[in-house]
Amino acid sequence: MRFDETYSGKVFIGSHPNYDESKAVLYGMPMDWTVSYRPGSRFGPNKIREVSIGLEEYSPYLDRELEDVRFFDAGDIPLPFGNPEKSLLEIETYVHTLLKDDKIPMGMGGEHLVSLPVMKAVASKYDDLAILHFDAHTDLRENYEGEEYSHSTPIRKIADHIGPANVYSFGIRSGMKEEFEWAKEQGMHISKFEVLEPLKEVLPTLEGRNIYVTIDMDVLDPAHAPGTGTVDAGGITSRELLASIHAIAASGVNVVGFDLVELAPVYDHSDQTANTASKLMREMILGWVK
Amino acid sequence: MRFDETYSGKVFIGSHPNYDESKAVLYGMPMDWTVSYRPGSRFGPNKIREVSIGLEEYSPYLDRELEDVRFFDAGDIPLPFGNPEKSLLEIETYVHTLLKDDKIPMGMGGEHLVSLPVMKAVASKYDDLAILHFDAHTDLRENYEGEEYSHSTPIRKIADHIGPANVYSFGIRSGMKEEFEWAKEQGMHISKFEVLEPLKEVLPTLEGRNIYVTIDMDVLDPAHAPGTGTVDAGGITSRELLASIHAIAASGVNVVGFDLVELAPVYDHSDQTANTASKLMREMILGWVK
Amino acid sequence: MRFDETYSGKVFIGSHPNYDESKAVLYGMPMDWTVSYRPGSRFGPNKIREVSIGLEEYSPYLDRELEDVRFFDAGDIPLPFGNPEKSLLEIETYVHTLLKDDKIPMGMGGEHLVSLPVMKAVASKYDDLAILHFDAHTDLRENYEGEEYSHSTPIRKIADHIGPANVYSFGIRSGMKEEFEWAKEQGMHISKFEVLEPLKEVLPTLEGRNIYVTIDMDVLDPAHAPGTGTVDAGGITSRELLASIHAIAASGVNVVGFDLVELAPVYDHSDQTANTASKLMREMILGWVK
Amino acid sequence: MRFDETYSGKVFIGSHPNYDESKAVLYGMPMDWTVSYRPGSRFGPNKIREVSIGLEEYSPYLDRELEDVRFFDAGDIPLPFGNPEKSLLEIETYVHTLLKDDKIPMGMGGEHLVSLPVMKAVASKYDDLAILHFDAHTDLRENYEGEEYSHSTPIRKIADHIGPANVYSFGIRSGMKEEFEWAKEQGMHISKFEVLEPLKEVLPTLEGRNIYVTIDMDVLDPAHAPGTGTVDAGGITSRELLASIHAIAASGVNVVGFDLVELAPVYDHSDQTANTASKLMREMILGWVK
Amino acid sequence: MRFDETYSGKVFIGSHPNYDESKAVLYGMPMDWTVSYRPGSRFGPNKIREVSIGLEEYSPYLDRELEDVRFFDAGDIPLPFGNPEKSLLEIETYVHTLLKDDKIPMGMGGEHLVSLPVMKAVASKYDDLAILHFDAHTDLRENYEGEEYSHSTPIRKIADHIGPANVYSFGIRSGMKEEFEWAKEQGMHISKFEVLEPLKEVLPTLEGRNIYVTIDMDVLDPAHAPGTGTVDAGGITSRELLASIHAIAASGVNVVGFDLVELAPVYDHSDQTANTASKLMREMILGWVK
Amino acid sequence: MRFDETYSGKVFIGSHPNYDESKAVLYGMPMDWTVSYRPGSRFGPNKIREVSIGLEEYSPYLDRELEDVRFFDAGDIPLPFGNPEKSLLEIETYVHTLLKDDKIPMGMGGEHLVSLPVMKAVASKYDDLAILHFDAHTDLRENYEGEEYSHSTPIRKIADHIGPANVYSFGIRSGMKEEFEWAKEQGMHISKFEVLEPLKEVLPTLEGRNIYVTIDMDVLDPAHAPGTGTVDAGGITSRELLASIHAIAASGVNVVGFDLVELAPVYDHSDQTANTASKLMREMILGWVK
Repeated sequence: MRFDETYSGKVFIGSHPNYDESKAVLYGMPMDWTVSYRPGSRFGPNKIREVSIGLEEYSPYLDRELEDVRFFDAGDIPLPFGNPEKSLLEIETYVHTLLKDDKIPMGMGGEHLVSLPVMKAVASKYDDLAILHFDAHTDLRENYEGEEYSHSTPIRKIADHIGPANVYSFGIRSGMKEEFEWAKEQGMHISKFEVLEPLKEVLPTLEGRNIYVTIDMDVLDPAHAPGTGTVDAGGITSRELLASIHAIAASGVNVVGFDLVELAPVYDHSDQTANTASKLMREMILGWVK
Repeated sequence: MRFDETYSGKVFIGSHPNYDESKAVLYGMPMDWTVSYRPGSRFGPNKIREVSIGLEEYSPYLDRELEDVRFFDAGDIPLPFGNPEKSLLEIETYVHTLLKDDKIPMGMGGEHLVSLPVMKAVASKYDDLAILHFDAHTDLRENYEGEEYSHSTPIRKIADHIGPANVYSFGIRSGMKEEFEWAKEQGMHISKFEVLEPLKEVLPTLEGRNIYVTIDMDVLDPAHAPGTGTVDAGGITSRELLASIHAIAASGVNVVGFDLVELAPVYDHSDQTANTASKLMREMILGWVK
Repeated sequence: MRFDETYSGKVFIGSHPNYDESKAVLYGMPMDWTVSYRPGSRFGPNKIREVSIGLEEYSPYLDRELEDVRFFDAGDIPLPFGNPEKSLLEIETYVHTLLKDDKIPMGMGGEHLVSLPVMKAVASKYDDLAILHFDAHTDLRENYEGEEYSHSTPIRKIADHIGPANVYSFGIRSGMKEEFEWAKEQGMHISKFEVLEPLKEVLPTLEGRNIYVTIDMDVLDPAHAPGTGTVDAGGITSRELLASIHAIAASGVNVVGFDLVELAPVYDHSDQTANTASKLMREMILGWVK
Repeated sequence: MRFDETYSGKVFIGSHPNYDESKAVLYGMPMDWTVSYRPGSRFGPNKIREVSIGLEEYSPYLDRELEDVRFFDAGDIPLPFGNPEKSLLEIETYVHTLLKDDKIPMGMGGEHLVSLPVMKAVASKYDDLAILHFDAHTDLRENYEGEEYSHSTPIRKIADHIGPANVYSFGIRSGMKEEFEWAKEQGMHISKFEVLEPLKEVLPTLEGRNIYVTIDMDVLDPAHAPGTGTVDAGGITSRELLASIHAIAASGVNVVGFDLVELAPVYDHSDQTANTASKLMREMILGWVK
Repeated sequence: MRFDETYSGKVFIGSHPNYDESKAVLYGMPMDWTVSYRPGSRFGPNKIREVSIGLEEYSPYLDRELEDVRFFDAGDIPLPFGNPEKSLLEIETYVHTLLKDDKIPMGMGGEHLVSLPVMKAVASKYDDLAILHFDAHTDLRENYEGEEYSHSTPIRKIADHIGPANVYSFGIRSGMKEEFEWAKEQGMHISKFEVLEPLKEVLPTLEGRNIYVTIDMDVLDPAHAPGTGTVDAGGITSRELLASIHAIAASGVNVVGFDLVELAPVYDHSDQTANTASKLMREMILGWVK
Repeated sequence: MRFDETYSGKVFIGSHPNYDESKAVLYGMPMDWTVSYRPGSRFGPNKIREVSIGLEEYSPYLDRELEDVRFFDAGDIPLPFGNPEKSLLEIETYVHTLLKDDKIPMGMGGEHLVSLPVMKAVASKYDDLAILHFDAHTDLRENYEGEEYSHSTPIRKIADHIGPANVYSFGIRSGMKEEFEWAKEQGMHISKFEVLEPLKEVLPTLEGRNIYVTIDMDVLDPAHAPGTGTVDAGGITSRELLASIHAIAASGVNVVGFDLVELAPVYDHSDQTANTASKLMREMILGWVK
């Protein structure tokens, strides 16, 4: 008696109605309470779903259709407003469940801090986990004005957790001097400014590895992603980011989970960035869930 | 495995999960293809749902909570783009089903033309039907530049169908001279400019009657409803429209169906009008579904 | 071979194609170079034309149609950017021509300073001229930081020109202490905050007089006219302003010219204010050009 | 060597350059991390300053100029992002300092929760303190989904602190049933929907009392204050709110502190709400700091 | 007595006042009633004219000025709202008249379906017609949910009409699998993702041929054309599209007509896309009308 | 007693509190009264300061931090609205003072005309001055519709002043035929369309020279700088402009002053362009103030 939701914008286009039969699960993490500049990414996941109906279900890049992949859209995890610690805990708990059920977790932020509990959960399942991190910002602070759980710290925390040598950052063009120095000292990979070329060099070295990919929308130039909390000029095009997704798809790595974060609809006139996020998500699903 | 949708913005807040157990059914009619000025109301129904999570479920006006009313949100009726006739037919068919199941139809537009098939369906069930129509515009044209099914004709068509004397228009401040003259000749009630006062005079005369209420958001002043296709200065406040809803609730009429149309989100900065539409809908549900 | 422009938004809806046969002439004065706060009203006149196609040509308030009034839309007077003095001179010259041809000048601003040369030209034709001025601001400064021709000085300049006792301001809620004191000393009428009630008292005293009316959109509350350079809370509704226009129409004064100024489209989301300005202009034309 | 800041928009217009010589102190509390719906009010205080340059320094309502009142604009209190408890503590500490220095605290939010530590600090100085609360929402929850410090709880917390009988709420039109019932049981004053009339009845009963006034911008109708986190139709006009400020000024109460909260610039097209907030602040300063 | 319109924004800048003396005719096709996602392109043509006054009349790319080309701006063809079939018929009739008068038709959309009747009319005059199609989308569906005349079908319909081998699509990055397969089977040229390079390869093979060019604004990346109905990430820059226009100008093909479609102003903050469309149109006129 | 302003958005991030100890001085020139198209750049300088708090103080491009450079932010020069001549005089006087104090002038516009008095003042100090000019427009008109001081004339005026051979323009893609011809005749360098490559050729020829750099934001493509008065498609990316700044920093020229003009916040949704301007300014300060 309810009209079919597949093309309603309430779930991601082409998602499967059944959790158990699905190989991957899409979920939102609507949290933005630690951001220091412009909040609003809590509304990101639902916006990505909403505009997904403007997409075709077929990718001419990958020659694959969404109906070829069974993925379930679970909606947004309910999170306690203004309480980062409890929020992170609930995310981590949820992802553990997904992993136990052998689902590939596909997250949508929210601020970047939401990736931390996901990566922790994934790391607890996969010993050899490496992380590919696409971002304008290092996110390598130990704390932000005393707060350990901040949008500026997730990559540092996970690097501390799985070892800096297992984290690869691309497109970085903003951070404190100390962050860049720390990464250098610790042997963590940071590609400043560039994405596709260094990625193509890194991927062969990761063949066969289990990989988690976390993409902050602001790795894109503000021209391509104005709708995010902290825009930073000098970024890459959506074309280069699509090519990077396809390069990962064509490589020998094994993507065991991924997320796309920091879409903030209130700064996104006419859903330009949301539409791009939605297409990126389609390509990630079609390219990485095999 | 899917997170509860009640507070997700995907259904109207407080809606019941089960059709059969519900007394009333909320549905969207996402059509705007005959509008002559500014299109966009096709996205109205989902926007009303989305912002409904900003509402409390309790009305201090009516001292009643949404959980006291069982209503089901069925989603949007899928309609064929650019084909008005087929679209109207599908709406009418759907509402006939609701009426057969003894559900109160509660529609969300879409352009005002979507109300026509609903009113026709309701009129086929209730012989004595009267219509209360709140609008800035007469909508009494016989056709619009030759097109019979147009956003400018629904009230004329239904007046022709159930008799002009059974139609009561309030707040009208725009139309062609011929339309006002036709109404006068036909004995149809038109309250120019005013709403609450004439409504209070009309309601006692309708005691015991079955009533369908259709509200065009543009009966509100542009200050109160900028997010609609055709704004028209000199309208009423949201406060007066709320009071009108409450006056109907307190009267002796029997509301057997209603709709709220012409919310066009793309013209609605920061969802001002959408939030108002959402509150109006809550009050209509709490006040009219008994 | 060119499609009819009447409903194209390029001229005001219902305007007559021929200057000579017209009784009144509509023209734009696209100047905003002396404003101290937010510029942009140069684009006002064309926006009023553009949105006029959303209007009906019939007024249910006045029971009159635009085809009953012959008025010509001459377009915008070309003005030299950044040169106030030369701009004012060109406006004055143009209006003199209109008056010589016995046309009623109907101007659209632009900043309020554009009204000054128009009022001067009109005063040179009509000895007994009185001015009705609707505004949030006194506009009674002698100069603004040394600049004599400023958006803050037009009413002072015309009051000096035709005598303060012949100027009646309504709705004023902003100005310097000195301005209010000067008006008091000079016997100039200022209705603080209120419009319709004091207007109804003033009008009988002006019976038979030739009147120029100048309306600054910001006499409206920001809720009703957000799209203007300097919004000021506590203003009147569009309903009250419409009623004021109608009160003038019903009175015994003889309107010999009028203008509507300070619509600034760039601050006007979804043309809310522009649509209102357009309706006000229709009512002024239908009510005042007899 | 720095250009004078008085008209720069960096401080509130007309503020005094010297703390010690000032009677009142204006400060911002840029926190919005517990809001459940739409964040963004952290940018409110600076926006109020920025647009204040569009104001005249003279009030024709009160016939008083800002230079007649010595107030210092201290800027925004630096607050730790995402940490409500620590933020509230820093606010409380700061206000204690102001009170010790015999300054009248004049705060700008931020979400409404920021008023709680201010009111606590003020209550510790004035035994007989009463609170006048203007808002669309009760803000009387004990906690919000388990979080005690939430934008939904400040009035409850202060009522618990100084006794519900000393708290007077006006304009309330949204809340849970339990909140209204609690207020009733506790003898707390709530004026549903109305503001000016009940205020005029309450004020004489408070003569001679020390009063703290807290105004949530959303007491205004969305037409008058679209730029806030949670708009709610059916509110009052800016005219009524101005009149309420003037009624307090004319009464026999002694205002010992006040705040204006919940301006969220990102939802405020063309600074409509910000300009209104700025004017309200001017009137509060001119009317209440004696 | 009307001010010169050349720089008024009511006609395209530099257009000639006389139809008979003009070699080419610019006209708008303000239709958007079959779009499935976001309507609004009906307002595209007038917006292109409006912003054209921000252009210089000289092209430093082509070293040519608009006064060197005689073209007439006829305004918008009046079309019946909500009736696609009748609308297409009126467009086709109009273009037949232009062709009979030996004018080069230069159209502005409107949704892409408006190009179909133009291409049909042009094909009836030129036997050897080839079509260059720049677009993000294939537009090769046979029908869209049963509707044959849809924004998704125009290229399929014209390919069926003149033979798929005579249609060349560039920049395509979205479509159904079936559409790409159909094109392949039929020997129709589709350049996926790329524009300038494949165009340079195709142009020499078309030397001496009569060519119609149809450009959908969404061939541009959303960063370069956010103001369109369906944005799709991964497109080309405005620089590449300008270079493509210049490549056609420098080639040996004979452009006998062209259009630019799908500008939707309501999604175009600050007229970014409109300004680009306007410049593209200037370059097409200067480069192609010889 | 006032909270530290360094991170308040009221001064540019990292600016030094003391004029005397600073090597360079940042100042705003809030004038836009001669622009022929869209005004609003008067609000540019304060917006650049406001969003600068979103920046890191460290540049990973230059490996340098703002605390390594002592620069003072003096605020905006107060300028008389609507009076270009007096405004230019006040700017020139101010910059003479800075130069006498041996400060490097760093200006923020405002329209491009504000650069003229600065360049004149700088030229009076440095005999061998050369100017690097980045812009979409030639700005080489002798006058604009009779007005000598116009946003279209500054480069012509300074070229006349210091000799056309000392002026180098890059990225130019708009102007009148006569302007390009004049430049050619006079031996002035104009790089049409391109920036970085020709700059790299020019820089070695300027080694050891004193250089003033003036950057009009519209040299960037509209995708990268929508928030400016006159956008013009086909421009460069922010990445190329950053690289150009770095190329100048790495060259042997001696930058003795610079400015960034034409940011117009009202056209800049979500501060995209402002954030870019702010980052460009940081890189110019870090790269050029040695």
